[in-house]
Amino acid sequence: MINTKDEVIIRNILAADKQSWENLWQQYLHFYRADITPEITEKTFVRLCQGDSLSGLVAVNHDGQVLGLTHIVYHASTWSEKDYCYISDLFVDKSARGKNVAEKLFNAAYQQADSRGASKVYWMTQEFNSSARSLYDKIGQRTSFVIYQRKE
Amino acid sequence: MINTKDEVIIRNILAADKQSWENLWQQYLHFYRADITPEITEKTFVRLCQGDSLSGLVAVNHDGQVLGLTHIVYHASTWSEKDYCYISDLFVDKSARGKNVAEKLFNAAYQQADSRGASKVYWMTQEFNSSARSLYDKIGQRTSFVIYQRKE
Amino acid sequence: MINTKDEVIIRNILAADKQSWENLWQQYLHFYRADITPEITEKTFVRLCQGDSLSGLVAVNHDGQVLGLTHIVYHASTWSEKDYCYISDLFVDKSARGKNVAEKLFNAAYQQADSRGASKVYWMTQEFNSSARSLYDKIGQRTSFVIYQRKE
Amino acid sequence: MINTKDEVIIRNILAADKQSWENLWQQYLHFYRADITPEITEKTFVRLCQGDSLSGLVAVNHDGQVLGLTHIVYHASTWSEKDYCYISDLFVDKSARGKNVAEKLFNAAYQQADSRGASKVYWMTQEFNSSARSLYDKIGQRTSFVIYQRKE
Repeated sequence: MINTKDEVIIRNILAADKQSWENLWQQYLHFYRADITPEITEKTFVRLCQGDSLSGLVAVNHDGQVLGLTHIVYHASTWSEKDYCYISDLFVDKSARGKNVAEKLFNAAYQQADSRGASKVYWMTQEFNSSARSLYDKIGQRTSFVIYQRKE
Repeated sequence: MINTKDEVIIRNILAADKQSWENLWQQYLHFYRADITPEITEKTFVRLCQGDSLSGLVAVNHDGQVLGLTHIVYHASTWSEKDYCYISDLFVDKSARGKNVAEKLFNAAYQQADSRGASKVYWMTQEFNSSARSLYDKIGQRTSFVIYQRKE
Repeated sequence: MINTKDEVIIRNILAADKQSWENLWQQYLHFYRADITPEITEKTFVRLCQGDSLSGLVAVNHDGQVLGLTHIVYHASTWSEKDYCYISDLFVDKSARGKNVAEKLFNAAYQQADSRGASKVYWMTQEFNSSARSLYDKIGQRTSFVIYQRKE
Repeated sequence: MINTKDEVIIRNILAADKQSWENLWQQYLHFYRADITPEITEKTFVRLCQGDSLSGLVAVNHDGQVLGLTHIVYHASTWSEKDYCYISDLFVDKSARGKNVAEKLFNAAYQQADSRGASKVYWMTQEFNSSARSLYDKIGQRTSFVIYQRKE
């Protein structure tokens, strides 16, 4: 838990965050033009709160409003006995940008990954997402890897 | 299980493949200049044979020699109720190249992913790996995603 | 012809669209900093209306105002007996963005390509055009190909 | 027609080149892992010899053996009254590499494009094809354009 001068707190997602979280989640999905059914959103939220294979962190203000979210997947690796930590989703509300909220979410994810003993933390972004990459070049390092997928 | 005119069979990895598999695995790690301890290799092999969070497929010839390997990780996703299938490792012995062994391994991975109900199959490669990407452009599709990781 | 709840209709370009079309065309050329003479614009418009080697589709509202345009080139290929369909130009008026007009234009182009028996549909974009690529990653797939040209 | 000290001549493809041409064509298709039916190859060859929408140039040695090929597509453009010249295929036999055969084929294509009044000459290559791009950076200029296609 990190308390900052802007009073943004990063903490694990709670069942009570549902409405506030979903508002951001839908904005995030809209950005990626993703079609996710209400059923998947419902199940994802439950799994994020359970904090097992999926883990959710939120940035909240003093009113408890969710200003940012990040979702983390822990999965096995052939290169390590310990799990890898994959930061699957990250989004900050427009009203809260420019206040290092994304950076705080990353730091909290790093701490969680350390506490769980993850041997690696990684994430993806579209190569043309200049505003995201500007941050990622600071708080992480670009690798030479690109992603392929099965034809849809 | 696919039996071809070249007598290359794709099947799940077995404990008896240990020595033959490790020969390819070490070549693959050498290609990526990766330092993996014997303990990790040992544990990874056990987990690949168990076929739970990790799954291993091998291409073997009529003598049972491992000519190719692929390792698969199934993991949770926030965008889907079903797991994603991540093809973590792929390697074909130099002596067996040009015989579509990699393509057969991919097809077997696709089949396994379908049988497990995975909602997506994806993998990574270095953007400059021209021989790998030549194949991947045929059997898959390049996405716009690049990978970032926590600074080491 | 697609009639939606927003009353945006996609149809072939008509001679009567000239003024409304040219307004968008000039904005599109301005975006690419392209210098096209009035003579070329005139001849291109005529050819788009003829619908032979060039084909034009427009998105119009209930007043008949052109809100979006796409221009298509059909050309021979050495890899196929059938023509390839190249989507040459695409532009949506700022006032009409966020209403899936571009997506509707693409769907209409796909339908036209199918009706003409084209064996492939492809298009280009600058690698840094993030808003375009965000859409293209959804309705198409990025290939590994880049474009070279003769030195000017 | 260009006669060089290595006695490599660049000329239009002729019906008599069929067998020698097809040998190279199949190697080229193999490089791209492309599956082209014999019927398409047959029809493509006929159209290349006709020199209408498709045009073929070959590099031949003093024995008339085809050492290199390039295929050109002329197509309409919305940005120009004149056609664009798209260099669709280019391949040089391994035995003839290092002798500027590809460069000569490009120069002949440029001349043909000029004689036909084409307003642009362009071509594509996979971003990871380092040996091709090394040449293209010399005889042409890279643009910022990448290619998308309809999902297959």
